[in-house]
Amino acid sequence: MASFSRLVRFLARDGRTYYGDAILPRGITDISKAKQARIVKGDIFGKHDVTDQVADIRLLLAPLAPEDVRTVRCLGLNYELHAKESKLPIPQYPVLFYKPVTSLAGPTDPIPVHPLAQEGTGLDYECELVAVIGKRCSDVPESKALEYVLGYAVGNDVSHRDWQIKRGGGQWSLGKGFDSWAPFGPGIVSSSLIRDPQTLTIKTRLNGKTVQESSTADMIFSVKKTIAFLSQGTTLLPGDVIFTGT
Amino acid sequence: MASFSRLVRFLARDGRTYYGDAILPRGITDISKAKQARIVKGDIFGKHDVTDQVADIRLLLAPLAPEDVRTVRCLGLNYELHAKESKLPIPQYPVLFYKPVTSLAGPTDPIPVHPLAQEGTGLDYECELVAVIGKRCSDVPESKALEYVLGYAVGNDVSHRDWQIKRGGGQWSLGKGFDSWAPFGPGIVSSSLIRDPQTLTIKTRLNGKTVQESSTADMIFSVKKTIAFLSQGTTLLPGDVIFTGT
Repeated sequence: MASFSRLVRFLARDGRTYYGDAILPRGITDISKAKQARIVKGDIFGKHDVTDQVADIRLLLAPLAPEDVRTVRCLGLNYELHAKESKLPIPQYPVLFYKPVTSLAGPTDPIPVHPLAQEGTGLDYECELVAVIGKRCSDVPESKALEYVLGYAVGNDVSHRDWQIKRGGGQWSLGKGFDSWAPFGPGIVSSSLIRDPQTLTIKTRLNGKTVQESSTADMIFSVKKTIAFLSQGTTLLPGDVIFTGT
Repeated sequence: MASFSRLVRFLARDGRTYYGDAILPRGITDISKAKQARIVKGDIFGKHDVTDQVADIRLLLAPLAPEDVRTVRCLGLNYELHAKESKLPIPQYPVLFYKPVTSLAGPTDPIPVHPLAQEGTGLDYECELVAVIGKRCSDVPESKALEYVLGYAVGNDVSHRDWQIKRGGGQWSLGKGFDSWAPFGPGIVSSSLIRDPQTLTIKTRLNGKTVQESSTADMIFSVKKTIAFLSQGTTLLPGDVIFTGT
């Protein structure tokens, strides 16, 4: 049994959907450039095989199938600069909110803006490191927290400020939870390749122009602190997805 | 194919777990009094059969299996009186928040209070009508909203006010989302038996004493209004659970 390096879920040329381990040309690390993948068979959170069967990628999908996702957690305000920009105090504890599983989408899926979200103003992107839980855990100490991570992706915590802040009664859920408002991907890079998730650069490009750029070194609550905190009295399950904040 | 009247999930005398249709003695409507159930086979949201096979109920469990639940939605402040008690304005729109699937528990399961939730004060109960979505839907008009409801249960939106309000950065998620902090049941009464969910009495009894009592007629946002509102741009899935507010 071998495990994957860069897990993708994709529509293949044969019209079927597979999990696969992305095959990248030498020198390329951008998963979205992958044209082929080795098909992964079995339980991606448990016993599985990266087979020798190679399939052509027609379209990269959300890297987890809807039925493989349990709960989508998100942190707010996890970079000092963003907290200052938003004129909000730096939080003492991670600020937790959730999105419904239906908000997850693939890296190139359209993001529909429902008429409700066309009311008011403040449609916004928030580019974030996403951690996917691979093993059931609760009350995990920081020192062991990263052992429960299957891998990492990038995600966009799409938000509508009016609904999030003004019309939601103070709760952010509605203005962030519309269908496909949590695209992520393009794949899940195994935690065996990313030993330290606090050394990554994250960028948002809008029509080619960089509009957000930060280093995960600047996170207020690191991934291991976040998992240790969130797992207190709350069991995290394989397939839980954590957007670690903007 | 027959459908159930009062869906229960239970540990049977044979040590196995089943879905069943509760058998109630004549004149009794309290599902927690059921000693036996007819085993339900198949997909409770789709094609299923209430069989003639009768099993003895040893313990009633959460009426939905964890793998059958998708997203747990909750409303805050959905009764005028509670809004006034809490000195909060009556909301213009439903105030939405989520709980993780791990918060669901059975009607008699213990509710663990993690050391984190023993910090500060304000551990509280909130007794609520729970609606379970039976069919996938989005952008449902009010007039059709109840057609998507599988049935109704009662739930307790267990809350820790300090974590909910003061330490959560304004987001209620953490102080309401601990393991087993959303017990519900004792079963799911089919929407074919409850045609109008706005005519129900809900009570909380603590050690025999009634400490909360209200009528769903006093809800600010009725079940059909809630489903119509929440389904705007957000697909509701079979197995979505909605706590309709205190």
